[in-house]
Amino acid sequence: GRPLLLIAGPCVLESEAQALAHARQVKALAARHGVPAVFKASFDKANRTSGRSFRGVGLEPGLAVFERVKRETGLATLTDVHEAWQAEPAGRVVDVLQVPAFLCRQTDLVVACARHGRSVNVKKGQFLAPRDMRHVLAKCREAGNAQVVLTERGASFGYGNLVVDMRALVMMRELGAPVCLDATHAVQLPGGGGDTTGGNREYVAPLARAAAAVGIDALFMEIHEDPAQAKSDGPNSLDFAMADAVLRDVLAIRRALGQP
Amino acid sequence: GRPLLLIAGPCVLESEAQALAHARQVKALAARHGVPAVFKASFDKANRTSGRSFRGVGLEPGLAVFERVKRETGLATLTDVHEAWQAEPAGRVVDVLQVPAFLCRQTDLVVACARHGRSVNVKKGQFLAPRDMRHVLAKCREAGNAQVVLTERGASFGYGNLVVDMRALVMMRELGAPVCLDATHAVQLPGGGGDTTGGNREYVAPLARAAAAVGIDALFMEIHEDPAQAKSDGPNSLDFAMADAVLRDVLAIRRALGQP
Amino acid sequence: GRPLLLIAGPCVLESEAQALAHARQVKALAARHGVPAVFKASFDKANRTSGRSFRGVGLEPGLAVFERVKRETGLATLTDVHEAWQAEPAGRVVDVLQVPAFLCRQTDLVVACARHGRSVNVKKGQFLAPRDMRHVLAKCREAGNAQVVLTERGASFGYGNLVVDMRALVMMRELGAPVCLDATHAVQLPGGGGDTTGGNREYVAPLARAAAAVGIDALFMEIHEDPAQAKSDGPNSLDFAMADAVLRDVLAIRRALGQP
Amino acid sequence: GRPLLLIAGPCVLESEAQALAHARQVKALAARHGVPAVFKASFDKANRTSGRSFRGVGLEPGLAVFERVKRETGLATLTDVHEAWQAEPAGRVVDVLQVPAFLCRQTDLVVACARHGRSVNVKKGQFLAPRDMRHVLAKCREAGNAQVVLTERGASFGYGNLVVDMRALVMMRELGAPVCLDATHAVQLPGGGGDTTGGNREYVAPLARAAAAVGIDALFMEIHEDPAQAKSDGPNSLDFAMADAVLRDVLAIRRALGQP
Repeated sequence: GRPLLLIAGPCVLESEAQALAHARQVKALAARHGVPAVFKASFDKANRTSGRSFRGVGLEPGLAVFERVKRETGLATLTDVHEAWQAEPAGRVVDVLQVPAFLCRQTDLVVACARHGRSVNVKKGQFLAPRDMRHVLAKCREAGNAQVVLTERGASFGYGNLVVDMRALVMMRELGAPVCLDATHAVQLPGGGGDTTGGNREYVAPLARAAAAVGIDALFMEIHEDPAQAKSDGPNSLDFAMADAVLRDVLAIRRALGQP
Repeated sequence: GRPLLLIAGPCVLESEAQALAHARQVKALAARHGVPAVFKASFDKANRTSGRSFRGVGLEPGLAVFERVKRETGLATLTDVHEAWQAEPAGRVVDVLQVPAFLCRQTDLVVACARHGRSVNVKKGQFLAPRDMRHVLAKCREAGNAQVVLTERGASFGYGNLVVDMRALVMMRELGAPVCLDATHAVQLPGGGGDTTGGNREYVAPLARAAAAVGIDALFMEIHEDPAQAKSDGPNSLDFAMADAVLRDVLAIRRALGQP
Repeated sequence: GRPLLLIAGPCVLESEAQALAHARQVKALAARHGVPAVFKASFDKANRTSGRSFRGVGLEPGLAVFERVKRETGLATLTDVHEAWQAEPAGRVVDVLQVPAFLCRQTDLVVACARHGRSVNVKKGQFLAPRDMRHVLAKCREAGNAQVVLTERGASFGYGNLVVDMRALVMMRELGAPVCLDATHAVQLPGGGGDTTGGNREYVAPLARAAAAVGIDALFMEIHEDPAQAKSDGPNSLDFAMADAVLRDVLAIRRALGQP
Repeated sequence: GRPLLLIAGPCVLESEAQALAHARQVKALAARHGVPAVFKASFDKANRTSGRSFRGVGLEPGLAVFERVKRETGLATLTDVHEAWQAEPAGRVVDVLQVPAFLCRQTDLVVACARHGRSVNVKKGQFLAPRDMRHVLAKCREAGNAQVVLTERGASFGYGNLVVDMRALVMMRELGAPVCLDATHAVQLPGGGGDTTGGNREYVAPLARAAAAVGIDALFMEIHEDPAQAKSDGPNSLDFAMADAVLRDVLAIRRALGQP
């Protein structure tokens, strides 16, 4: 077994200063717990509930920020892309290209991420059975990339609610890929915030612990220094103190089960 | 009230000859029943389950086919686009730009379709509550296009199954937009076909009748001369005889309810 | 084909006077539309959300009321039972014994209803696949009763919501039994009313029309002279004017489809 | 915090000898891990899928078996009851009266269990939101019994499948009651076995570990010496070796989180 990979950062790049400050704290958090870390952030929130919400700094400015983050902190970086043409430029800078959940069935995007990413993180669509991720994995492998992480981020459960089916982590691991829980998006309440997506931050910790007990290779969490001020996904983001507590428990569970 | 709009055609453009043959039959079908029709087909199936499945003729050849169909049959045309840049060229040729269900939350795509389409058909995501389509509608209107149809095509119901919530048609109509049932995609069984999506053609007719009884402005059906030979979505496509019977019943129900 | 059977009445027996008044109106409603009718009411609401809610007049007083209703109106009657021992006394008076949805898997209750009821109406559990009703039907038939109606009343769809899967009517009819839509319970919102079950009366009419278009043998509706004053299920009950409009449309749809 | 309570035993009482043999092994299992145990078994499987399946030894013979088990092993006992009249006799013998999931809304049964049981275990219905269990809890408390355990056993997730929503354990604990995971029924596949209920034994261990990581007061598992020969629920039952491994991991997780 390998140590747990922490994928953490703010939902969206708000500015270079914000990114650097958060990346340093992510680095410190990971160091404190002795785990490798990847800094995640989105340069563009392409699927906001409302067309009037903040979307981010954009692709080129975003990539410049990621370069600076890498240079200053040494952290690996991850970002999500939304159209196939973005994979090539993004893949020149960030280490992991992420396919958003809604887009996990878009063949061109998946293939472009596989071609241009050192590795790929595919979030399982809220509408997809865990075993159907085998087709996504096959698309990546046929494009020549076997460095693929499969991420659970909740399945549609009626309207306005998501449920994390813990069996999905087992099923996806059986496909031969490392698996990840996106613990903060999994507690979103789609449409629950009126004009924005709501969320239940209080369930991040129990879901993260549960996933650790089931068996995960990576843990994805959005962390913001001040979630109440976050420009996206505040209701389901953690602050660094919360993230520290989650990580402590998650790693204790892993050690109890004999995992590094 | 206005007459029911029929949106029909094969799932995917397989060739110019196939498109023309199908469009002529769609035109004859609509004429027989006295309803206006739009010829639908996809130039690219961008989200096939397997990366090895047939995807279509591609954008530019596809647009040439649509031009020929319009010229030869006089039918209005509809196609779906998958990335924002496709909206402009597609919008120059086809009458209705369609946003696929998985992509209904992609702001750039929705806005591009609103800008470049005479009208837009947005399929409600399998993961979305009907009332959350108000945000999609607002994105279109803010982009200057109020000619938007909202289409129900089934909601995620556990794994590998979709359910049509008939209340959704009422809820979406209350948003102030015409509503459509996509009767053939609604009977898909995602992942149910192993390496392809399965489907239950036998439920197309009852769901179409039910939607007509609830109240719809348009009916979307994929029709193939020989569904067993269709290169995509065969299991849930109708042949023309089936489509004729569906339309007959749907229109009888509308007349019984005093609708044209 | 046989004419549609109307099963209608108040949710719960509140008093003899209330029952008689409602039964006379049900009889008039059915006569106006030329359909046979069964008067339904519960003598005991055994599964109220709160233990403090009104439960009804009880078994023996309730049976006396049903006898009076039959004598005075000539209507057939239906009531639901909750424990197996109630089936014998109830079956001596009412014409149809109903198995509640939550209880449709309780073998003793199903068998007792089959033995003691002239006919049986089994509501499909909110947790049950339509085709699994074949086992319930088999239990009735093995107990010697083939007069069984299978009723759709909504399936669990996340928390606090139900969805009517119109395919269920087709699937259950294929089991060889007449099928019914319970149009008023299908619009309940479990837990949605805080200490009571909420409901969306406005969807009763579209769901009833949809079911008629799919194909049903019976339509079940709870009707109260003044739903706002009903001691149970007011939020999803219709008044007689609403029921009249629903029935008019439902029968128009049937005629349009060539059904009596 | 108190130590985890193990509730374990065969699905159904097949004979006195079977019960005693299993109870001794449950006792040994619990002793090996230093946790208190309750021996569970059903005297009657009142809701089998098929009317022809084995149902158990019946109430009176079953109570005699529970008496013998208590006398010979000293274990506390639990059984489920299905109609209100069974609660009084069962409550004279067994320590915990259990309300089955399908029946958790039957007020008389819940109240009878509260009155006649030393303590009560209520399984949350597959159709019920976790927070709606507050009404069930209130019914017990108003009947004078505050010794109530709330058990998660999976929620309806489409047809033929259940999902364990780990948030439910948190939500139910917030109601002020100890919570339990029924790890073996949670992996049932309703209707999945054709004429019987199917199951996925391989998910029992991950779900039990996950629940331990979230926080539970009790763990419920059906264990059979030879699941392949079990007369009920074999596909989701564990054998004693599997149960031992589950318990070892569950307790390791609890210790890692500072729980006894």
